[in-house]
Amino acid sequence: MSSGPLPAAEPVPALMRAIGRSAVAAAAVLALVSTSQKDRALAAAAASLRAHRREILDANVADRGAAAGLSGALLDRLALDEARIEAMAAGLEQIVALSDPIGAVLAEWSRPNGMRIERVRVPLGVIGIIYESRPNVTADAGALCLKSGNAVILRGGSESTRSNAAIHRCLVFGLEQAGLPATSIQLVPTTDRAAVGYLLAEMADCVDVFVPRGGRSLIERVQRDARVPVIGHLEGVCHVYVDRDADLAMAERIVLNAKMRRTGVCGAAETLLVDRAAASTHLAPLIRALLAAGCEVRADAAGCAIDGRVKAATEADWYAEYLDAIIAVRLVDGVDGAIAHIGRYGSHHTDCIVTANAGTAERFLTQVDSAIVLHNASTQFADGGEFGMGAEIGISTDKFHARGPVGVEQLTSYKYLIRGSGQIRP
Amino acid sequence: MSSGPLPAAEPVPALMRAIGRSAVAAAAVLALVSTSQKDRALAAAAASLRAHRREILDANVADRGAAAGLSGALLDRLALDEARIEAMAAGLEQIVALSDPIGAVLAEWSRPNGMRIERVRVPLGVIGIIYESRPNVTADAGALCLKSGNAVILRGGSESTRSNAAIHRCLVFGLEQAGLPATSIQLVPTTDRAAVGYLLAEMADCVDVFVPRGGRSLIERVQRDARVPVIGHLEGVCHVYVDRDADLAMAERIVLNAKMRRTGVCGAAETLLVDRAAASTHLAPLIRALLAAGCEVRADAAGCAIDGRVKAATEADWYAEYLDAIIAVRLVDGVDGAIAHIGRYGSHHTDCIVTANAGTAERFLTQVDSAIVLHNASTQFADGGEFGMGAEIGISTDKFHARGPVGVEQLTSYKYLIRGSGQIRP
Repeated sequence: MSSGPLPAAEPVPALMRAIGRSAVAAAAVLALVSTSQKDRALAAAAASLRAHRREILDANVADRGAAAGLSGALLDRLALDEARIEAMAAGLEQIVALSDPIGAVLAEWSRPNGMRIERVRVPLGVIGIIYESRPNVTADAGALCLKSGNAVILRGGSESTRSNAAIHRCLVFGLEQAGLPATSIQLVPTTDRAAVGYLLAEMADCVDVFVPRGGRSLIERVQRDARVPVIGHLEGVCHVYVDRDADLAMAERIVLNAKMRRTGVCGAAETLLVDRAAASTHLAPLIRALLAAGCEVRADAAGCAIDGRVKAATEADWYAEYLDAIIAVRLVDGVDGAIAHIGRYGSHHTDCIVTANAGTAERFLTQVDSAIVLHNASTQFADGGEFGMGAEIGISTDKFHARGPVGVEQLTSYKYLIRGSGQIRP
Repeated sequence: MSSGPLPAAEPVPALMRAIGRSAVAAAAVLALVSTSQKDRALAAAAASLRAHRREILDANVADRGAAAGLSGALLDRLALDEARIEAMAAGLEQIVALSDPIGAVLAEWSRPNGMRIERVRVPLGVIGIIYESRPNVTADAGALCLKSGNAVILRGGSESTRSNAAIHRCLVFGLEQAGLPATSIQLVPTTDRAAVGYLLAEMADCVDVFVPRGGRSLIERVQRDARVPVIGHLEGVCHVYVDRDADLAMAERIVLNAKMRRTGVCGAAETLLVDRAAASTHLAPLIRALLAAGCEVRADAAGCAIDGRVKAATEADWYAEYLDAIIAVRLVDGVDGAIAHIGRYGSHHTDCIVTANAGTAERFLTQVDSAIVLHNASTQFADGGEFGMGAEIGISTDKFHARGPVGVEQLTSYKYLIRGSGQIRP
């Protein structure tokens, strides 16, 4: 027989299956390793990021050069500098400082027949992270998955390929230094878009959960195509409700911070609701403060009457996640009106009431069905670090498994251990 | 214009959307009602089940008459008698006695800036339960969902239609007595199979989670078609491993109970693994005890050599969930061999080690990746009631959200309440 050409290989499926098999094998090891071994890997990776910052910056310059068509906000997310690399390294060290969730006894009790039951925390297994071109996610997500005893398959945006690869090499160096499988943290090494499709649809035997991180279209795509569970937040249409019993100075401070501290984060306020009973005292100062801070205001008729610069809001504004210096403003009929508006237009992410009335506050806290509900504090606190959870991988607006900030504890499951002395069931 | 025939209506979608809208509205009410109101409804439903046992039995006789073609086991699950109705009523009263999970503070802490953070338990929302023809699930599942503050849409097997409807009327009576929405517990009132397809695929805006309860094909269908999360167990391929350090009398007692107490439950043992180092002392007595108890034994060569009635096991036997008086028996190389066998062939449900060696037991408990791992106790304890959790809706072999017995706590989510005094984020 002649040695004719081999049939064309299917590179993406073969590559992805090899990655999946390696991840499953690494997960079996990681579930049982000590805290100190995981922490040694993270500390060594942090040191490696600092030692190789020159190579990482060069890779990032090359990425940015190839991605010149990106818009300003996207280019800013892609960009690295010395300070951002130091922040990544410091982030790994913060994850070292977190207590290890794995093995923690969540509950324990005895049964009348003498059996002891423990519920203990275990890893989920293999986590797939699909994210846009933000190189810092490579370090953050890789480290959070490792600390929680999970293997991870990372697939970053194609514009950040070189930066991600340079950062990933530092993570692998850390794993090797600590004697852990180098495949504990894998980066999909191809920009072929078929790899994402295969990862989502064909690897349910290798991946236990996906965590998409990025804009709405990415998260919707993952939720639609994944064959295993997804932890994802869709969007943050966050509200500040200023009640009739709100202190005006506090309300101004909170509204300005919630809207303007950073407008591009999911915890930024998008809609200001003002109690109709406080319209004559609170509405004008709040709108003027927002305008003075450079925020565009889109309001109902009452708001438009305050200042000529206020634009008329349309129905679409109540649903909008601007992620920009724009706010929708509306009068509502007291706390019940605010609760009804948020129930109809909100995204179950983060909402705030400003009031000095404790009973009104409790009503709002209880009845608003959002992951995070605040009384007299800015919506911009919607962040795992601000909760004291260390780093986070996102804010879940799902109710299933994880809600709110997703940190190391939210990347775990549990199992029951039962210790007996020969008990049988009657 | 002549009044010609109207275009054919689409009865199933219209019906199902009405059910979905009612469930969402009921869920909003249930999330906020008091424990005593939910408990009053359950107690009144229990009384109603007892008062209407005659009608329920008549409905069940009619169901069984129409389902004469069913096999023995299925017909047994469908059948009701006075004792089973009393057990349903008593089950509702046990759920009354459980503490209310909703509103429980799962964690609370303060931040350096003075904010107080609480994580409190909230319902999931609307739960869809899809089950085979077991009328008691109508009462159990309806009650568990109500106690956990969720609205529920029940869709039972078509053979149990009349029985389910009669039981459902008692639940609705209870809801009405307590002043709760009658639509808190809805039963899909059609046997049209299109209703299940619509429920799974088209009602993601109305249903938060599905819990299928039944055989493998039902659960796989729900997992494949559902557009929202699913809590489901696929199967229980449960193992008992008898170690070299096992007390033989205890091993015999546990193996017989784990296999033969009830063979049709998911926690029944399907495979017996015996340490090769104990083959000469433990294998023959265990196999003879199983044979004497009427259990068919399928074994490797060592087992076949014990007794002429032992059949040779094939590869398929190591994967089998018999749910019958059949057991697969195999020698393994110590605890590591047992762990490897269970990792390869098991279903991550419930597995047991019998040993007097504490170190060996800990190795097994730690390394076997199953929802429930027991030391010196029967696998038949895999049951929410036996855990002290009250009733259960099934045993989850998923790692996501709920693992092991699914009781009222597993049917909940949580939210964060933050109480401040004007804090803004720097």
